[in-house]
Amino acid sequence: MATTYSFDQLFSFSKNIFLKIGCSDTDAAIAANSLLSADLRGIDSHGIARLTGYVRLWEVNRVNAAPGISIVHETPSTAVVNGDSGLGLVVAPFAMQVAIDKAKNVGTGWVSVKNSNHFGIAGKHAMMALENDMIGIAMTNASPLVAPTFSVERLLGTNPIAVAIPAGTEPAFVADFATTTAANGKLELLQRKHLDTPTGWVQTKAGNPSVDANELKNGGALLPLGGDREHGSHKGYGLGAIVDIFSAILSGANYGPWVPPFPAYLSMPTEQPGKGIGHFLGAMRIDAFRPAEDFKAHMDKWINGFRSAKTIEGQEKVLIPGDPEREMEAIRLKKGVPLLGSVVEDLRKLADRFSISFIE
Amino acid sequence: MATTYSFDQLFSFSKNIFLKIGCSDTDAAIAANSLLSADLRGIDSHGIARLTGYVRLWEVNRVNAAPGISIVHETPSTAVVNGDSGLGLVVAPFAMQVAIDKAKNVGTGWVSVKNSNHFGIAGKHAMMALENDMIGIAMTNASPLVAPTFSVERLLGTNPIAVAIPAGTEPAFVADFATTTAANGKLELLQRKHLDTPTGWVQTKAGNPSVDANELKNGGALLPLGGDREHGSHKGYGLGAIVDIFSAILSGANYGPWVPPFPAYLSMPTEQPGKGIGHFLGAMRIDAFRPAEDFKAHMDKWINGFRSAKTIEGQEKVLIPGDPEREMEAIRLKKGVPLLGSVVEDLRKLADRFSISFIE
Repeated sequence: MATTYSFDQLFSFSKNIFLKIGCSDTDAAIAANSLLSADLRGIDSHGIARLTGYVRLWEVNRVNAAPGISIVHETPSTAVVNGDSGLGLVVAPFAMQVAIDKAKNVGTGWVSVKNSNHFGIAGKHAMMALENDMIGIAMTNASPLVAPTFSVERLLGTNPIAVAIPAGTEPAFVADFATTTAANGKLELLQRKHLDTPTGWVQTKAGNPSVDANELKNGGALLPLGGDREHGSHKGYGLGAIVDIFSAILSGANYGPWVPPFPAYLSMPTEQPGKGIGHFLGAMRIDAFRPAEDFKAHMDKWINGFRSAKTIEGQEKVLIPGDPEREMEAIRLKKGVPLLGSVVEDLRKLADRFSISFIE
Repeated sequence: MATTYSFDQLFSFSKNIFLKIGCSDTDAAIAANSLLSADLRGIDSHGIARLTGYVRLWEVNRVNAAPGISIVHETPSTAVVNGDSGLGLVVAPFAMQVAIDKAKNVGTGWVSVKNSNHFGIAGKHAMMALENDMIGIAMTNASPLVAPTFSVERLLGTNPIAVAIPAGTEPAFVADFATTTAANGKLELLQRKHLDTPTGWVQTKAGNPSVDANELKNGGALLPLGGDREHGSHKGYGLGAIVDIFSAILSGANYGPWVPPFPAYLSMPTEQPGKGIGHFLGAMRIDAFRPAEDFKAHMDKWINGFRSAKTIEGQEKVLIPGDPEREMEAIRLKKGVPLLGSVVEDLRKLADRFSISFIE
């Protein structure tokens, strides 16, 4: 059912597609790298399976393949970046580099981005900070699928937060998660298998609890992390709201119910208060606080303490955020990335669309 | 069963107690203000009910009432503050002011604090940023009561995060929440009423699910926001971990299982890797991103959009983070703060201990 391709094969193909829609060679490589980091890390819903979706956004003129990405306002530690409708896959690395450069100068850098599009996985952008001995932070808003606590209406996206923190001999700590109980990709997996969701993932159109993995198609909503008020959903709602405000109200992007949808066939919200979708990127230089070597030694101690903790029965170990994704990346770099038949079919159609050959 | 006192009465009494343990007049007022903001905002577990606890920490020399709080390292946008074992109620406002001053200069300010003690409610410190047209962020680690996903051991505190965001004609957005499903104070309420907890709040000593509000006394643990893996507890665990690392590993405070307990009668963890407990404070100047008036107008639109959303049956409105606490504060400033008999009894004992008169 699944066919396996090497990273290099998928990279070449994706890069070619980005070139075909008009990206520069540099941008096409950056976009392919951003996109495929999701496949490598096992977050299949955000990887090459979305390549067709990005192309469709370009077809309806919602993605500008040759954007003039620019800093429109700045201070020594902050900037607002206008993505000029570029691929978020390219705009986010640009903005993260601005944050890193500011952190080099004044200790930290914080960049809010408007007029962008979906940026792939947040963790990839946050991890850019690691090689500079910095902590990286990345978040983005997204189109409204989530009902805040007590709401029937969908007002927030799954609004992920990623934080990457360097360690010494241990691998880096990389948390990367939607601020909902479960991301939409997990619902899609259950739909394919005709399985119910656990409690607390979705609600019906009327706002009643549900375990139907197809509930969103019926007008229902995803739920904030926590699920319901009794289990702390107001906290997940608060987190999603903070991501929305930092990403879009600081920058001038669209927020809340006005964030453009990823599928190009869906109509745009009317009377939008901003431009495109918004991101927020941050970088903090470790030695702006204490010597990096000291920090890293303590991170190693922290990581080892947690990883070696006594587990509940049936569990092998306590995971450090980023462990599963890093292990998956090592496997997939070696053994390749398995793609579902339906994804391969979509990619073949893309190859036809641009008269290029598919992966041989 | 409860007696009601005015804010002024409780402020005078608390300030007198802080003076009696040796605080300066300025520090005693700051400490009383930090402490009582919890009572005003309805977070009774973190307010004057803890005054005796702070005094006991002073009695065992864990609180230094006349600390030399200092900046030990800094860059234009960052600092590490050594709290010199001072009351967190005083150290945190000092550190937040440093963050605000840096934000005035370079757009943002970020301060990690070591060698401190419990700082009351996070929201109070974050809100210091509001009057400067800044976004305020406050977090702190705390002694280990929380088992990470798959762990039997308690390795994290309830590690709260607060984010305060200015609005225009609407009241500010103020999220302030523990990174657990429920804070310990809510367990104590259920214990007093002999009620069970909802699912996902606590686990037994062996790591099995439980609804016993007394589970912590049996060696059990609080659970990260999400409750279990299926409901996203790895996200709550990741958030609590980020708070721990930003607050303590950036600064040189104790982290994870080594964070000192609040009750003075509990023994200190051995082989501590740092000093005291840690906090992390941040301030971002709104106009470091865009004109404050533009930002505030969009915040008003955001807030109104959410507050007027259609609700699930039986709920009056969608709440904006900070709404319940602000409404409580307005009531209690006018009608006073009700204190339980047991709390009043403790305060009377404190008055006796320092030979001062209790509130007349």
